[in-house]
Amino acid sequence: METQDKIAAVHRYVEAFETADIAIIKELYAADATVEDPVGTDTHNGIDAIVAFYEGALSSGVKLALTGTPRCAGDEVAFPFQVKAPGMSIDVIDIFKFNAEGMVVSMRAFWGAENMGS
Amino acid sequence: METQDKIAAVHRYVEAFETADIAIIKELYAADATVEDPVGTDTHNGIDAIVAFYEGALSSGVKLALTGTPRCAGDEVAFPFQVKAPGMSIDVIDIFKFNAEGMVVSMRAFWGAENMGS
Repeated sequence: METQDKIAAVHRYVEAFETADIAIIKELYAADATVEDPVGTDTHNGIDAIVAFYEGALSSGVKLALTGTPRCAGDEVAFPFQVKAPGMSIDVIDIFKFNAEGMVVSMRAFWGAENMGS
Repeated sequence: METQDKIAAVHRYVEAFETADIAIIKELYAADATVEDPVGTDTHNGIDAIVAFYEGALSSGVKLALTGTPRCAGDEVAFPFQVKAPGMSIDVIDIFKFNAEGMVVSMRAFWGAENMGS
């Protein structure tokens, strides 16, 4: 998978939140994908569970803003961003792992209480 | 493992480069640790191979500067930083995974050609 395609996936992900468009989530994730958000908690397994998870996140109205350049390596990309809503923010780093078809098969989100701000 | 201990490990890692002190590397990594730098390449397996890898890196004179807050989650911490040397820089995100003794058992470094600057 080309670096530019991984970076495009990151920007589409930001756009999904910007436009609250669940169709973009369905287009990014593989049917058998897993989402671990935050890392260390139970994963959402499969596209149906993942869509349910994001429907909640997107309807909450939070937006994402990249805070650095995506780092592409191997079949993966790591990217730093801030989750923003009125009166709150969280600094997060996500890792997307892609399959041979260019779909995200694994998302892991790194953040904790110490990353929350106002 | 406490969040503050993971964050302290990140700062010790930055200090290892600042002072070119291989003793800090030996103190951070578990005997059976693996280092994948960058992600997608062959891993350095075990403390001897890891020390040899860092001896090269530390003697090159590069320094690290955090570019955001470490994100702690589960047994891991993700942190964004810049590798700096005269005339070059690389934006990187590292993931440390810790064992029950608080030693790093896995390091994965995310960066690619598009993250290099001057």
